[in-house]
Amino acid sequence: MKQSQTLIPTLREVPADADVKSHQLLLRAGFIRQNTSGIYSFLPLGRKVLQKVEAIVREEMDAAGGVEMLMPALQQAELWQESGRWASYGPELMRMTDRHNREFALGATHEEMVTSLIRDEIKSYKRLPLTVYQIQSKFRDEKRPRFGLLRGREFLMKDAYSFHSDQKSLDEAYDLMVTAYSNIFRRCGLNFRAVLADSGAIGGKDNHEFMVLSEIGEDTIAYSDSSDYAANLEMAAVTVEYEQRKHSGQKMARIETPDKKSIADVADFLQVDQQETVKSMLFIVDEKPVLVLVRGDHEVNDIKVKNVMNAKVVELATPEETVKWLGVNVGSIGPVQVPESIEVIADNAVKFLGDIVCGANEEGTHYKHVQLDRDFSVKKFDDLRFVIEGDPSPDGNGTIQFAKGIEVGHVFKLGTVYSEAMNATILDENGRAKPMIMGCYGIGVSRTVAAIAEQFNDDNGLVWPVNIAPYNLHIIAVNMKDETQVQVSEELYKLLTDYRYNVLLDDRTERVGVKFADSDLIGLPVRITVGKKASEGIVEVKIRKTGETYEVQKEELTDKLQDIFRQLSNI
Amino acid sequence: MKQSQTLIPTLREVPADADVKSHQLLLRAGFIRQNTSGIYSFLPLGRKVLQKVEAIVREEMDAAGGVEMLMPALQQAELWQESGRWASYGPELMRMTDRHNREFALGATHEEMVTSLIRDEIKSYKRLPLTVYQIQSKFRDEKRPRFGLLRGREFLMKDAYSFHSDQKSLDEAYDLMVTAYSNIFRRCGLNFRAVLADSGAIGGKDNHEFMVLSEIGEDTIAYSDSSDYAANLEMAAVTVEYEQRKHSGQKMARIETPDKKSIADVADFLQVDQQETVKSMLFIVDEKPVLVLVRGDHEVNDIKVKNVMNAKVVELATPEETVKWLGVNVGSIGPVQVPESIEVIADNAVKFLGDIVCGANEEGTHYKHVQLDRDFSVKKFDDLRFVIEGDPSPDGNGTIQFAKGIEVGHVFKLGTVYSEAMNATILDENGRAKPMIMGCYGIGVSRTVAAIAEQFNDDNGLVWPVNIAPYNLHIIAVNMKDETQVQVSEELYKLLTDYRYNVLLDDRTERVGVKFADSDLIGLPVRITVGKKASEGIVEVKIRKTGETYEVQKEELTDKLQDIFRQLSNI
Repeated sequence: MKQSQTLIPTLREVPADADVKSHQLLLRAGFIRQNTSGIYSFLPLGRKVLQKVEAIVREEMDAAGGVEMLMPALQQAELWQESGRWASYGPELMRMTDRHNREFALGATHEEMVTSLIRDEIKSYKRLPLTVYQIQSKFRDEKRPRFGLLRGREFLMKDAYSFHSDQKSLDEAYDLMVTAYSNIFRRCGLNFRAVLADSGAIGGKDNHEFMVLSEIGEDTIAYSDSSDYAANLEMAAVTVEYEQRKHSGQKMARIETPDKKSIADVADFLQVDQQETVKSMLFIVDEKPVLVLVRGDHEVNDIKVKNVMNAKVVELATPEETVKWLGVNVGSIGPVQVPESIEVIADNAVKFLGDIVCGANEEGTHYKHVQLDRDFSVKKFDDLRFVIEGDPSPDGNGTIQFAKGIEVGHVFKLGTVYSEAMNATILDENGRAKPMIMGCYGIGVSRTVAAIAEQFNDDNGLVWPVNIAPYNLHIIAVNMKDETQVQVSEELYKLLTDYRYNVLLDDRTERVGVKFADSDLIGLPVRITVGKKASEGIVEVKIRKTGETYEVQKEELTDKLQDIFRQLSNI
Repeated sequence: MKQSQTLIPTLREVPADADVKSHQLLLRAGFIRQNTSGIYSFLPLGRKVLQKVEAIVREEMDAAGGVEMLMPALQQAELWQESGRWASYGPELMRMTDRHNREFALGATHEEMVTSLIRDEIKSYKRLPLTVYQIQSKFRDEKRPRFGLLRGREFLMKDAYSFHSDQKSLDEAYDLMVTAYSNIFRRCGLNFRAVLADSGAIGGKDNHEFMVLSEIGEDTIAYSDSSDYAANLEMAAVTVEYEQRKHSGQKMARIETPDKKSIADVADFLQVDQQETVKSMLFIVDEKPVLVLVRGDHEVNDIKVKNVMNAKVVELATPEETVKWLGVNVGSIGPVQVPESIEVIADNAVKFLGDIVCGANEEGTHYKHVQLDRDFSVKKFDDLRFVIEGDPSPDGNGTIQFAKGIEVGHVFKLGTVYSEAMNATILDENGRAKPMIMGCYGIGVSRTVAAIAEQFNDDNGLVWPVNIAPYNLHIIAVNMKDETQVQVSEELYKLLTDYRYNVLLDDRTERVGVKFADSDLIGLPVRITVGKKASEGIVEVKIRKTGETYEVQKEELTDKLQDIFRQLSNI
């Protein structure tokens, strides 16, 4: 493609409202433009990158046995009413009415539509398993669209859905998808982790998010420094083997701790380590009060509390509820002499403490030298806290580190949630009707483009991985008034295109400084500069990623490029 | 692809609400399903066909110098308010509000959005010309969706827009597009015509619709039986050289013609040929009355009247207006002694008549032996009638025939309509601001799929052209319980896939009759049946289009297929 014939509107200035690198650079290098909040146009370079990612996704989905379909964006409200999500989805689901006043949703996701479709076509276990997918624009009215393509309101997504007659078949499809997703993000060049995630309200055991590691990520990942283990912070199990501390034998003593509200304040005031204190937090678990104890330097993980208590709803007690149940404000509550109506549970670490400092259930007062079982009792110990960096990895390999991640994919064993709600049944081997078992699998295609841009850039601009770059080569004719340079550029453009390279030729009559700056900004893997030495048959080849340059005879160019691309693809 | 792993839900019955062949067959063969009125899902085979057409469109658009982009479907109302179409587009434009109550249109077309985008990025004539395109779902809330994919509410469209600094550049891009469109529809195997079309309210001279000839078409095309000439009925010029008839010299005579309302009635009653009568019709042309005369066997073409009169609005007078201006009802009006306030114009044919029969402007009364210039006068003669079959083709080659057409593409010189309304200006060579000159070019991609299905079918099902077929080959294992047949089928499936054929393997345990019927319905170009003779290494090859069958040794299969596909591609 000749640059004079396409649209690559580069910007010198960093756009005011773009706070993250990928957003800034995709705008500055002319890949995208914002139409209105959270809604973007993909300009020619952006469209090409999107297509590169799409092609990889398609190949891997096909290899995993998926078949491509295309469902509509306009979805009649009735479908969403069947699943109950018309009411529960909230304002993120964009809605409209047609000329006959019939209500529609703009597809935010397609569980309802695909379940309705498959329910109508498949009636027997013999026709399963089936995995379908589509690549399509999705619509979600984000409250706070931001970070460019990372959190937009209209975005390109690959969504897949699998249907099964038994759990084993779902497990197999799920594993295939996990492999396909790993292939996809690896081929995109991304530094990512498959992260164990919370199943939320939908339930189901297996559920992984694919997270690209990035400082701007909105989620915290706990991962092992020596294995593949990774989980969302709230999902990571704690497997520390604590050492038992001895109690001094001293009697429990009451101390005034006026205005000391936090554990840190109290420990500081009493000159003890936070590890010798107990943090007590009152939760309302399915409407009953539960006092949860963790060691002072730990934090309660309410998702673990919910799982351990097998509860539906776990909420931190309000200040009013705390006063109601314990007769004191939050800063001074503790496990000693709590009313019998309050269940007390504790994180495993609490079991191993010696002399404990804790709240005395009296305003501005704590106890010290408290001893477990002597001064208070715990109904149940379990893993109730968040992991911290340095904890052992739950898989036994290495220790836990934290990182921030951008979610680019999600695989999920749905089970029968939708098939039951929407009555999508099949007849099994014995002629009995039962709900289909489902999985769903999403990739944010446009978000993946942004995640790649976020990981691959330097001070001068984007640095696309070979597999994703909109073109392989950027030929720069230094001086468009120099006939030799123009002729050599055109000649190489033709030659290299014939060699199946995708070539962008900068044939604009701009100053060479502008051309170089634009070229760095756009970030194609290799630049070929046709300058003064063109008259001697010599051009300069520069690798964008490393900055290495070579002077190459025209005749040796294709060999040299072959070497370079072989190297770049191996990195 | 193995049929057991994909979704091809064929139907034996013709769906009740599908009235045209393409709709029936695409449903029956399992290519599409309706979600709700005018809204369809493309099942795996339908998606593949769509992608075949998309790929052809993309190749030809790229070859014509277009660059691909992707603009959003959600378009802020402000853009449409700038062009004035927020008010004028009517209920076909689907509208919604976001969570902040801001209004949006769902993209029915993208003139406003692309004009806004290019206006912001391009400021100089040096950066033009530019042609951009996208392939994307569009939304139009049709009052009466019908014929399946032919008139839906959500459909796939390729829309392109070109921007120029002068008319010559637009003309060049337009010609490239006409060529690209012809290539596209030819590669789709379609019998089509590029048809001169009415520019409607937007104006602009050049404007062609690409029409696939089909009985179910909603438009009438006048085309030459011996050349490329084709025009929408209302656009076809009449170039007949009439023969002058002699007048008998008899005086004009008044005759009672009670209850004879139509020209046919009057001619019949008076025993004269309709060609000896004049049909008079009163129009209100920009609020002034104009009496338009055509020969009795002709019909007034009001678009020609409008163009000849250089008028903005031409409407047939109401019965009340007719009585007001001529004092008589419609059935008896004529050109003799009309008030001077009424202008009289006539089609060229009227000039060549001899004795004329016409209305007498008196209830139930006509004149005969009327003579032009002696008994009435005409201010202006011009081409004012519709062509009829048998008229000479305006390009001088052959005679006019009529056909019905399905519009699959439209190319249009927009000129400066949008750039003026939206203030999209560039600086020209002299540094003066002037509006960009634009063209727009659309192809209904999903509609094209339906048009192909409409042209390529027989009593047994679809008969896809090689370029468009979802797979090249259909391998049928006759008896899945026969190990040899299963083994040979699998072997051929692998072999032919390695040979780069796209193969569908029917590995279902269905009766062979069902498999053959489904295969014919789906309509892949070539079927390979693996039956009893598989044990001797012999399979049957059948060409779907011609029904020819061959018994072929396995070893000779790839050669035979090469021959067949060479032939099929030449047809």
